Amino acid sequence: MSWVVKERGFDPGRITANGNKFMIGNGVLGYRGTLEEFGKEELTATIVAGLYDRVGHKWREPVNAPNGLAMALRWDGAPFDVLSGGAGEHVGPAPEPLEHEQSLDLRHAVHRRRTTYRTADEAQVTVTSERFCSAARPHLIVNRISVESSRDGILTIVTGIDGDVWDINGPHLERLETGSDKDESGDVLTLTGWTHERNVPVSVAEAVDDGFGKQQERQLLRGETAIRRTLRLNCRAGTTYAWTKYVSVFTGLDKTGEEAGDPRLAAIASSREARGLGYDRLLREHAERWERIWDATDIVVEGDEEAQLALRYSMYQLHIIAPDRSEKVSIPARGLSGQVYKGAVFWDTEMFMLPFFLHTRPEVARNLMMYRVHTLDGARRKAAEYGYGGAFYAWESQETGDDACTLFNVNDVFTGRPMRTYFRDKQVHISADVAYGIWQYYKFTGDESLLLDGGAEVVWECAVFFYTYGYFNPRKQRYEILDVTGPDEYHERVNNNAFTNRMVKLCLRIALDALDLLRDRDPSRYEALLSGASVRPEQIREMHDSLYVPEPDAESGLIEQFDGYYTLEDVSLADLKSRMLNPHEYLGGGNGLATTTQILKQADVVLMLHLFKDCFDPAVKKANWAYYEPRTEHGSSLSSCIYALVAADIGVPDWAYPYFMRTATIDLTGESKQYVGDLYIGGTHPAANGGAWMAAVLGFAGLRYDGGKATLKPALPSSWRAVEFPVRLRQGAYRIRVEREALVITAEAGNPEPLPVEAGGREFAVAPGQEIHVSTISS
Amino acid sequence: MSWVVKERGFDPGRITANGNKFMIGNGVLGYRGTLEEFGKEELTATIVAGLYDRVGHKWREPVNAPNGLAMALRWDGAPFDVLSGGAGEHVGPAPEPLEHEQSLDLRHAVHRRRTTYRTADEAQVTVTSERFCSAARPHLIVNRISVESSRDGILTIVTGIDGDVWDINGPHLERLETGSDKDESGDVLTLTGWTHERNVPVSVAEAVDDGFGKQQERQLLRGETAIRRTLRLNCRAGTTYAWTKYVSVFTGLDKTGEEAGDPRLAAIASSREARGLGYDRLLREHAERWERIWDATDIVVEGDEEAQLALRYSMYQLHIIAPDRSEKVSIPARGLSGQVYKGAVFWDTEMFMLPFFLHTRPEVARNLMMYRVHTLDGARRKAAEYGYGGAFYAWESQETGDDACTLFNVNDVFTGRPMRTYFRDKQVHISADVAYGIWQYYKFTGDESLLLDGGAEVVWECAVFFYTYGYFNPRKQRYEILDVTGPDEYHERVNNNAFTNRMVKLCLRIALDALDLLRDRDPSRYEALLSGASVRPEQIREMHDSLYVPEPDAESGLIEQFDGYYTLEDVSLADLKSRMLNPHEYLGGGNGLATTTQILKQADVVLMLHLFKDCFDPAVKKANWAYYEPRTEHGSSLSSCIYALVAADIGVPDWAYPYFMRTATIDLTGESKQYVGDLYIGGTHPAANGGAWMAAVLGFAGLRYDGGKATLKPALPSSWRAVEFPVRLRQGAYRIRVEREALVITAEAGNPEPLPVEAGGREFAVAPGQEIHVSTISS
Repeated sequence: MSWVVKERGFDPGRITANGNKFMIGNGVLGYRGTLEEFGKEELTATIVAGLYDRVGHKWREPVNAPNGLAMALRWDGAPFDVLSGGAGEHVGPAPEPLEHEQSLDLRHAVHRRRTTYRTADEAQVTVTSERFCSAARPHLIVNRISVESSRDGILTIVTGIDGDVWDINGPHLERLETGSDKDESGDVLTLTGWTHERNVPVSVAEAVDDGFGKQQERQLLRGETAIRRTLRLNCRAGTTYAWTKYVSVFTGLDKTGEEAGDPRLAAIASSREARGLGYDRLLREHAERWERIWDATDIVVEGDEEAQLALRYSMYQLHIIAPDRSEKVSIPARGLSGQVYKGAVFWDTEMFMLPFFLHTRPEVARNLMMYRVHTLDGARRKAAEYGYGGAFYAWESQETGDDACTLFNVNDVFTGRPMRTYFRDKQVHISADVAYGIWQYYKFTGDESLLLDGGAEVVWECAVFFYTYGYFNPRKQRYEILDVTGPDEYHERVNNNAFTNRMVKLCLRIALDALDLLRDRDPSRYEALLSGASVRPEQIREMHDSLYVPEPDAESGLIEQFDGYYTLEDVSLADLKSRMLNPHEYLGGGNGLATTTQILKQADVVLMLHLFKDCFDPAVKKANWAYYEPRTEHGSSLSSCIYALVAADIGVPDWAYPYFMRTATIDLTGESKQYVGDLYIGGTHPAANGGAWMAAVLGFAGLRYDGGKATLKPALPSSWRAVEFPVRLRQGAYRIRVEREALVITAEAGNPEPLPVEAGGREFAVAPGQEIHVSTISS
Repeated sequence: MSWVVKERGFDPGRITANGNKFMIGNGVLGYRGTLEEFGKEELTATIVAGLYDRVGHKWREPVNAPNGLAMALRWDGAPFDVLSGGAGEHVGPAPEPLEHEQSLDLRHAVHRRRTTYRTADEAQVTVTSERFCSAARPHLIVNRISVESSRDGILTIVTGIDGDVWDINGPHLERLETGSDKDESGDVLTLTGWTHERNVPVSVAEAVDDGFGKQQERQLLRGETAIRRTLRLNCRAGTTYAWTKYVSVFTGLDKTGEEAGDPRLAAIASSREARGLGYDRLLREHAERWERIWDATDIVVEGDEEAQLALRYSMYQLHIIAPDRSEKVSIPARGLSGQVYKGAVFWDTEMFMLPFFLHTRPEVARNLMMYRVHTLDGARRKAAEYGYGGAFYAWESQETGDDACTLFNVNDVFTGRPMRTYFRDKQVHISADVAYGIWQYYKFTGDESLLLDGGAEVVWECAVFFYTYGYFNPRKQRYEILDVTGPDEYHERVNNNAFTNRMVKLCLRIALDALDLLRDRDPSRYEALLSGASVRPEQIREMHDSLYVPEPDAESGLIEQFDGYYTLEDVSLADLKSRMLNPHEYLGGGNGLATTTQILKQADVVLMLHLFKDCFDPAVKKANWAYYEPRTEHGSSLSSCIYALVAADIGVPDWAYPYFMRTATIDLTGESKQYVGDLYIGGTHPAANGGAWMAAVLGFAGLRYDGGKATLKPALPSSWRAVEFPVRLRQGAYRIRVEREALVITAEAGNPEPLPVEAGGREFAVAPGQEIHVSTISS
């Protein structure tokens, strides 16, 4: 049963973690894994992808829509919910939860809960709930609830839409308006609010389908911030009473057919249509979509059930937030799990999530990169704001591409004062990461359309930015990239960060290549691009050719992370931590404990070794892994997977395995940094989820694809008997099975061309429909 | 009586401040203005110029020699001293101080104290002490004490040398050895110790001359860290009992005649010789030296007694620490007042003290600049340490020129942890300041010897340093100076600091000019200099010609302090201070309150306006003064005088006056910052003392000298009727008197040539022996 994630028993201390762990979503909506009786205190959230709002001078962040899944149940007048179990303000003791279980069926993306209560009169009442965020209908969440008791009693159901929601920097919705639209199938309740900043309407509708008929007493309750209905039902022992809620969420950003522009009408129509179709049919179409998703992506691990489940779970987390319908949104660093990190898109997408989609769902990869095309103007504005040319992409990007990142990202735990951090203005590698992502898409798919539809402009503008950012060192006769923050954010404002410089050089190369392609394919667009350019291609070429990129030391093989890194204090991580005076103190920034030491937050040089794996020989990789690994705090969830990948690459999968598991289980265990200073940073970790996939497929299975040839250089962890997975490379679909001593590569019959492969010391091609077995026993 | 600084009454809270205020010294020794009965707790100190020591990993700092002026007095067995007055552990109550007075005669540099005690039996006993640090004999301190009582009683005198001294990062002297050398005139006591780091011997000798003869009982007391003698004397009412101490301090660094190499013998000989000459004769030769010093330097202010005294006091403080005998030492930022700031020499010397000596005692100015020539190798080592060429002078320079500045200069008051500051590695303007100082000496004196004796190498090496530090901006086609800390230390690591860039440009210019001079005067030295140079003069010229120097905005006239300064928060100083959580918290550094605002520590752009006063028109100066003045915290004692100077320059002396008085009285009131973090930074403020002189002569009297012509553009504060002072310009000596509506310039008869002058709208020359009166009433 490596498809089900389950927790038994109710632990109030796990409410926040489980809200992340048991998320459902469909790329348009994300719904936290909270229980039906939960409210804002328990961080319920319905996050709408791509809709942001700002209140006053507080941080801009995603809008949490009114909670259409709100529900309260009473048994003979006493509430039953896991929170107030055993005591409350009501008359008499509340029913006590005897058993409780929450689970997620990954295969069909269905969330379930089952709770059995013991009532004051010793009856047992069992409540189940099953919900999914429809993969077929992006605005719909469906929830089916059932109640069964061992004695007769009166069940009161309070169900509706709660607009008093969890907000970090809200409230974002103003002028909440309730609505109740009746037709022959019953009422559809609506709650509509308007965002503070741009007055975008957000409307939630709830239709309920129950078979209770005359048996029930109904009542409509309108409040300031909620609309609910109550149903009072005489229940008989042994009978199951079930009902379904059809909740639709539309916003002013959705244009859907006739109701375009009126999200309330769209939501009503959607919920009515869903009610008409009924639960089973909606579940079936949803489940079919998921079957297809898994067909294209599932990894089978033989010999390691824990890794199997963790890998599937990681992919599940990516699928539920994948923007498969829109090229205007990308994936935020905390997915759709809330408002943490402002719901912003970071480099995480290009560097840690994109590979998964490139290899499995290239249409999603294209959307992710088109998002950068659509936000190019924001990046241009940011560059201009700092006095540079070209495009300086937002460190924290929202819908416009303007940077949501503030100059003060963390509060000092000792003074409570905001601390100046150099994420926004100095993490310039973001523009190179974007260019890299666009070029990766082109290399993997062979699809030029992204470049021709604006991608070439993006990479060119990124290169122009770097040209205007760079300096020439007259004594050393080379270009340098000064004053940057690399991936290791504990060391801000450093010079010649090896990772950054190499990425910049690549970006310049990509820009020149993209320009060549554009000239060939769309000469007029090429002319237009260059006619207004302040920088000439020759200048980009000159910078490319004489840009300083730190190389491995001839003797030790080590690459210095940045100029002067070795002069910093070489303290052990344990010693550094023993100096901490507060468990949440930020280790970077002006006075951070790590700032003046060699302790790094996350893979930096080692990330470069991963991205440029063909540029370094194994001895160099090993030397740098061994040097930087004990000095890495892994204060970022982006770190472990990279150490896993490089360890696998150098043939030491058992070094890699603990890092892989740490990455793959991050949202299962909830064991990640929750606070930096007094800033809550919890939520899901899609970059780590993508990292888990990378570690398995690119690391342990050792798959590489350069746009022409695939290479397999497996290094399975000792517990893995085999791993098998599908991939798409260019227009072809393949299954790859890696065993301890053999490989099997199967090409789909419909593939357009053979795939050249290098594996097991051989070079061969896999023709459409062909299955090739290769021995990997070293001779 | 504007020659005497006096305090009446004893206030224990003033002990530290008065230790600074009542300092005596002679450029070789500095003795704090403490009382004879004080010990290490009261911060007694005998600082030896140019002798440094380091214990373990603590800061290197000057050596505090054993205290040869230590003395304790008892009356009928009970101690009388101002500290234990009224109570103590002895038998019966201690004598109580009735009256107390401490004073400094500036004219003759004599320290006096007079205290009258009431004893347990109601007798009054008066103790006086008079001491001076001989201006004629650099190793000698002389102290004459007298006691007179209203009743008979027994006086016990405990006098000797106390080696248990105040140290910030000591103890510096090891293996203290006591000695007692008798001859016909009595014992000479000695205490000798050896420095920790380099084993340099430091020896103090005490000879006592009293006329007590047989009347006394004598006893020698040898301790671990002290040697003392006691004298017991039956005193008769109404009789004055007086004695004199001759204290000599020699170190292993002194080579004096026959005793070279044995400082103990040298000290004994010196004290014996002094005892032979006697108090009056020693005082006379000392006073004569001081008369001559004042003849060459005194400023007479008519109409403002307070300013008069403060100005004389400021000059006194400079004279007592002026290295008039050695070109191997310069003036530390806290003079010889203790170990604060590691006894290190900062840019303070060139920018704030040098002008005084250039105009009055050019031979001292030459010594100050030769110190930089002698420490060139240290500056070369520092440049190489950071990967640059040329000479990067120490931010905190000691005897070798290696940088005593640490990377962690201040402790965080909230965590107690050391804070990374960028004084040492980023305050690169120091090398330009040194070049400027050398060139100023040449311009003022016309003396080429400094340049020919190594000065040209210094300025060339400073220019080479900047060439290797600079970067070329390819887009803007200009050189830039990146990543520096300017005078305003609250903003570290900024780009294109207007002050720094302009100073660098000047340094490049000076280097080219000095090279021309060297080629003409000493072609072989010129060839030698260039033959090993990694940078060619043409490269220096190219950088000079295309170095970016921020200019005034065409509209507002404002000069931005550095790139992006205007984007910082524009908070008022009061608001900023209201945010402070701890009165000693450092406002700069990584998380300092000022760092992210426009609040500056000290004059920065305004300092540039002063140094380059000919480059900016009055409207620009006024606009920038008005902009930066309310934003300046004056957290440094280097700030106020510059605001005074520029205010006088733009013709608003009443804006200048409060800043002038603040500068001129800093060591009189003791009202300066005493702590930064938990770091004690008190002591004397020679830069402010030099600034007071500059404000009076260069500001209010408006004297400028460009090496050829003198200009006078007076702007007297409203209370000043006139100011009169001597100056030396090139080989000539002059007296200048500035009245409210007239000027008088008198040239000494022995001057070698006439001085061209511009004043009162006229241009004329002052021939040797001539006195010229000029009306300054505007027509």
